[in-house]
Amino acid sequence: MNSFEISRLRTKSAAEVRALIRTGELDAPTAGMADGFVQANLAIIPKEFAADFLAFCKANPKPCPLLGVSEPGDPALPAVAKDLDIRTDVCGYKIFKDGVAVERVSDISRVWRGDLVTFALGCSFSFEHALIDAGLPVRHIDCGCNVPMYKTGIATTPRGRFAGPLVVSMRPFKPADAIRAICLSDRMPLAHGAPVHFGDPAGIGIRDIAQPEYGDAVPIEDGEVPVFWACGVTPQAVLEKAGLPFAIAHDPGHMLITDIRNAEIMGVAAG
Amino acid sequence: MNSFEISRLRTKSAAEVRALIRTGELDAPTAGMADGFVQANLAIIPKEFAADFLAFCKANPKPCPLLGVSEPGDPALPAVAKDLDIRTDVCGYKIFKDGVAVERVSDISRVWRGDLVTFALGCSFSFEHALIDAGLPVRHIDCGCNVPMYKTGIATTPRGRFAGPLVVSMRPFKPADAIRAICLSDRMPLAHGAPVHFGDPAGIGIRDIAQPEYGDAVPIEDGEVPVFWACGVTPQAVLEKAGLPFAIAHDPGHMLITDIRNAEIMGVAAG
Repeated sequence: MNSFEISRLRTKSAAEVRALIRTGELDAPTAGMADGFVQANLAIIPKEFAADFLAFCKANPKPCPLLGVSEPGDPALPAVAKDLDIRTDVCGYKIFKDGVAVERVSDISRVWRGDLVTFALGCSFSFEHALIDAGLPVRHIDCGCNVPMYKTGIATTPRGRFAGPLVVSMRPFKPADAIRAICLSDRMPLAHGAPVHFGDPAGIGIRDIAQPEYGDAVPIEDGEVPVFWACGVTPQAVLEKAGLPFAIAHDPGHMLITDIRNAEIMGVAAG
Repeated sequence: MNSFEISRLRTKSAAEVRALIRTGELDAPTAGMADGFVQANLAIIPKEFAADFLAFCKANPKPCPLLGVSEPGDPALPAVAKDLDIRTDVCGYKIFKDGVAVERVSDISRVWRGDLVTFALGCSFSFEHALIDAGLPVRHIDCGCNVPMYKTGIATTPRGRFAGPLVVSMRPFKPADAIRAICLSDRMPLAHGAPVHFGDPAGIGIRDIAQPEYGDAVPIEDGEVPVFWACGVTPQAVLEKAGLPFAIAHDPGHMLITDIRNAEIMGVAAG
C-alpha cells in the first residue's frame, strides 16, 4: 500500500482498517488512520502474570489506562472491538523473551498460546486528536516525526514483579496553549489524562531534553514550555524490566485500532 | 462581631450570613463564610448602560462570568439568592461617581434608584475552595493576606463604553500542583475557569510581580511557577475606566454570598 492509499485510511472505520491489516495488505504506523476511533497500546502476557499486571495497571492509571482485558487464550476482546482477532489485527508486534525483544512480526498466530492474556491500554492519539481539533499545534506531528519520550525519576507504583520508572512524552506549547492542552487532555483519563509536569525537565529527573530515550527530539521555541504526559511506553519498559519468559507488545506506533469512539472516552475515569 | 464569632460563620448557610449582614451585625471580608456557597462580585449600574455591560460580560466570560442580572430597580435577584435585598445584604459597597470611588458604605438604600440594574459575577473563592479541598496549598490564604492582582497587557473585548485591560490574580504552585489547579479550576467556568497564563509575568505584560496593582504580594518559592487567572476585579476596573455618572460595586473581599452551591456550578459554562 503506498502513502497515498494510506492517507485515505483516515476516513475509514476501525473495522475497515483492521480488515486490511488482517489480510496483510497494510503494515504502517497507524497515527491518523480511522479518524475518531481510539487506538490502543498492547501487552500480551501469560496468565500466571496477568493478575499482577492488572494490579499494576490499576495502580498506575495515568501511564496504563485500561481499556480492556481478554480471557486467557481468547484472541477476541469484545470490550474494545467487535470480531477482533488480536493475533492478526495489529500490523506490527514485538516478541519478548526473558525481557528482551527478539523479533518483530506482523502476525502472532504461530506463537499464540492458550494461556495468553491481552491488555489494551489507552494511547495519546485520542487527546492529540482533541488538541488538533481545538487548533493547537502539536510539534512532532507538524515535524512529521515521533513524539519524544523520556524515562523519568518518577517511580511507578510496583505490583508483583512489575515496577520501573514512569516514561513520559513531551509536547512544547506557549503557556496559554499549554493550559488549553492540559484542560483538554484532563477530560480523557483513558488517554493518559492531564500532564504530570511542565517546565524544567530536571524537575522529574530528565537528564537531557535533546536526547529522548524513545522517539525523536523536537525543537522548543522561545516562549514555549515543554509539557510532559504519562506515556504508554511505560508498560512496555516495565514488561522488559520484569523479564517475563514470554510476552508480546505492539511495535510502537503500530497500534490496535479499536471500535471505541474518542467521544466515548471523554470524561471516563481510568483504573 | 469579634474574630471568633466570625470564624464560626464558616458553617452557616448563605441565608444566615446575609441576615446578619442585613441587620448590620456583620461587616467583614466574606472569604471562608458560608462554606460551600458561591460568592459573587457585584456591579450595579443605571439601566441605560446595562445592555452594553451585559454584552461586555458575555464577550469576556473569563473575567466576568455572569451568575445573574436583576430587573431595573428591583433589589431582588432570585437567580442567585432567595429573598435577597441587594441594598442591605452585602456588607460593604463602593459608590462611584464619574468613574471615581467616592464613598464606602454598608447600606445603599438611601442611594437606591428605580433605574439600577444589578449584575452578580462569579468569584475565585469557588475554585479556591476546590483547590483547598483537593489538598493544594493556596499561598495568599496560607499567608493570611489578599490575593495579588495585576493589570495585564491583554485587552478585554470592548462593548459600548466598556473596555480596558484584563486584571489577573496570581497563585504560585509547583508544576504538578499547577496542573491540578488548572484542571480543577477548568471545571468551574462560572468562577473564572482555567488560568490564562503561567510562568513569565512579562508574557502577559505584567511589569513587576513583586508589585501587584491590587491585593498583596506573596512569595514565590524555588521550583514554583506563578499561575494567573482572570480576575473579578476586571469589571470594576472597566467600570472605573468607563466613567459612568453613577455606579455601585462591592468593596473588594466583601462579596455577595449567594444561595448557589459550589457543586451546582461545576461544569456549567459561562457567558
